[in-house]
Amino acid sequence: MATVQARVLKGFRDYLPVADIPRQRVLRTISEVFESFGFAPLTTPALEYSEVLLGKYGEEGDKLLYRFEDNGKRDVALRYDLTVPLARVVAQHRDLEVPFKRYQIAPVWRAEKPGKGRFREFLQCDVDIVGEPSIRADAECLTVGLEVMKALGVPGVVARVNNRKILDGLLDGLGIEGTERRHDVLRIVDKLPKIGRDGVSKELSEALDLDLDAQEKLFDFMALDVSEGLDAVLDAVGDSEEGRLGCEELNMLLTLLDGVGLGDKVEVDLSIARGLDYYTGTIYETFVLGHESYGSVMSGGRYDTLLGMFLKKSSPAVGISVGIDRLLSLLTEIGVIEGRAGSADIFAVLFDEESYAPLQKTAQVLRSQGVKVEVSLKPAKLGKQFKYAERKGYRWVLIAGAGDLDANTIGLKDLETGEQVTLPLEDISAAIR
Amino acid sequence: MATVQARVLKGFRDYLPVADIPRQRVLRTISEVFESFGFAPLTTPALEYSEVLLGKYGEEGDKLLYRFEDNGKRDVALRYDLTVPLARVVAQHRDLEVPFKRYQIAPVWRAEKPGKGRFREFLQCDVDIVGEPSIRADAECLTVGLEVMKALGVPGVVARVNNRKILDGLLDGLGIEGTERRHDVLRIVDKLPKIGRDGVSKELSEALDLDLDAQEKLFDFMALDVSEGLDAVLDAVGDSEEGRLGCEELNMLLTLLDGVGLGDKVEVDLSIARGLDYYTGTIYETFVLGHESYGSVMSGGRYDTLLGMFLKKSSPAVGISVGIDRLLSLLTEIGVIEGRAGSADIFAVLFDEESYAPLQKTAQVLRSQGVKVEVSLKPAKLGKQFKYAERKGYRWVLIAGAGDLDANTIGLKDLETGEQVTLPLEDISAAIR
Repeated sequence: MATVQARVLKGFRDYLPVADIPRQRVLRTISEVFESFGFAPLTTPALEYSEVLLGKYGEEGDKLLYRFEDNGKRDVALRYDLTVPLARVVAQHRDLEVPFKRYQIAPVWRAEKPGKGRFREFLQCDVDIVGEPSIRADAECLTVGLEVMKALGVPGVVARVNNRKILDGLLDGLGIEGTERRHDVLRIVDKLPKIGRDGVSKELSEALDLDLDAQEKLFDFMALDVSEGLDAVLDAVGDSEEGRLGCEELNMLLTLLDGVGLGDKVEVDLSIARGLDYYTGTIYETFVLGHESYGSVMSGGRYDTLLGMFLKKSSPAVGISVGIDRLLSLLTEIGVIEGRAGSADIFAVLFDEESYAPLQKTAQVLRSQGVKVEVSLKPAKLGKQFKYAERKGYRWVLIAGAGDLDANTIGLKDLETGEQVTLPLEDISAAIR
Repeated sequence: MATVQARVLKGFRDYLPVADIPRQRVLRTISEVFESFGFAPLTTPALEYSEVLLGKYGEEGDKLLYRFEDNGKRDVALRYDLTVPLARVVAQHRDLEVPFKRYQIAPVWRAEKPGKGRFREFLQCDVDIVGEPSIRADAECLTVGLEVMKALGVPGVVARVNNRKILDGLLDGLGIEGTERRHDVLRIVDKLPKIGRDGVSKELSEALDLDLDAQEKLFDFMALDVSEGLDAVLDAVGDSEEGRLGCEELNMLLTLLDGVGLGDKVEVDLSIARGLDYYTGTIYETFVLGHESYGSVMSGGRYDTLLGMFLKKSSPAVGISVGIDRLLSLLTEIGVIEGRAGSADIFAVLFDEESYAPLQKTAQVLRSQGVKVEVSLKPAKLGKQFKYAERKGYRWVLIAGAGDLDANTIGLKDLETGEQVTLPLEDISAAIR
């Protein structure tokens, strides 16, 4: 055993407490907001039959599956996303109440080349409404998403919305036909913020042989002024039925969000295309103001055909996905969350072995008042205990010998200012708030 | 694609909302109690290098690993428990603050024969203190565990405690030697509540050829009256140094727990042996009064040598593990938790399409007061919407047309009693509490 390299697997990572404490808090807040809208949690197993996953993510995706034969000779794989398992659940459990509003926050696995901030196991955080075709569902997903941003303390956000049917109408007009070719165009257009107009143009020419006239029209379209309404868009899609329907849906979405009071956080952006093939209507991306270069922190849209993959009939669905990793780094960067290794509010120093039980009993009183207390396990020198508390990121230290505990007068030291006050037990909770 | 059997993998299960809502609430409560004692979350990846896991769970355990070769020809496996990954983390990240107090609630995978309530993926919920040899750590793990039971509303519990060193002292006296033989004896003795004295005796004779005189002494020992103290135990372990140390540790644990105010929830039970080989001191099991037949819902102990598996030196550790699945069925059975598919407090019916935005806006006001509201997405007939709310387990229905929303007078219907009242918006929150 001495030769075992006790290392985390290549491409994977541990979340030590200093990183995991803020992460778990963020996840808890997100779940609570989801539930406050009536989205219910769904948990599916990490492993699925391979045939459930294969062919759903393109050829490239199939190669990235962690796929193997289990001890019972079953062909199995770790889930690649949360959407295909959702489709499997909807197909398997026919008695689910519709509309089915579920959220799932869970790891997915992709055998990708690991890179800066890219790991082979990472969390996805999805909220979806299945079985509701009305745009109210599209509005609700964005509403709950924007509420998540607010609850997390993200300072200012803008949701940029578009509709795939409008893009389809435009592509109709440009004579770009065939599902694959259209998806290829949209995938390249989606890179606009990353590689710029010249980059997109180059790819459209080289990879798809799209003529410059069509490109020109595409770029003109994406730059249309929609601040006063979608009239110019209606003009651009011409007599495409699909395009007109897209405009109608987009208008309805804007009206609903305005009615909910979110009008100022939403804007139409005709250049939003989303790289994924399966969107059929509303698409959205969300950016943090002043930090647009991070990319979208929350994206999604309507995908009315995807969930039908295991059913004879299609099942309308719309969802939004919070980019947890991106959001966590951004929130850390702007100082909204702070990593520390101590999960409590107060660190209580221990004078001697005899004080442990009464100190822990006192801590129980504080906990019943909602104050989290880590009681020192080591009656080391006080300075040493202070250092331990500091290293774990604690600001407050509780100082009480056995006599103080009896008298209910407790020392509370602020490690940031160095100040120390003596308080009765019942005032501690208020003092640290 | 039409031929794909969209089924969950054999031996695995989905937690649909009706089961997952109470489950997630229980998990959230447990995390919060852990954190209120300063235990910090740790997240490790599902996959580990196989060599990290192999040989840690016995030959049988190795066979139950989900082990495979990944796309990069690495020999990998899904984690089998949370303890070996903890040992790997402690060995890899040497700069962790000690004592290191962590909790982890995460799935583990075992390719076992599935049975009633036994699945191949299941949650483990562990809290451990690494690096602290004093019995204060043993006391703290049981304290936080009992606090979890209280926070979950488990009516009455008893923690039965023992110490492996006492058992070792006794086995010394009985001339039972050799680590393996001793572990075999303890593993069989551990089955006492399941197979009774005759069953244990039969196995001790047949499998281990243990003579009846030694068996007699073993059974007499386990039945010793310890209600007045451990004197009889001290007598029984004779001059075994190990046995006397065990008595001392057990006494210390009882004194500490008594001091914290938990004396009435803890009792010595000399028949508690724990099946696992790695315990070195305190061992505990916890039972719900009146439901002892469920078995222990929370177990653990001190394992001072296990964590050293990847290090040159040993690292003292003690922990407790909450049996989530067992606890969930028990809490459901005794009516402390109730499965329902609606995750909010109130279901708000929708009169017509035009009411959606103002209704959602009203719901936002309620949410800001801590009331969870699911807004109906379908303006169906009221009776149909009530039925949907009922099927999802909602008690409260909010009834408001556009006019009512303006006037801030809202109907609140209690589906249990059928009563309906009209209230201003600001009174809704109080009315449902």
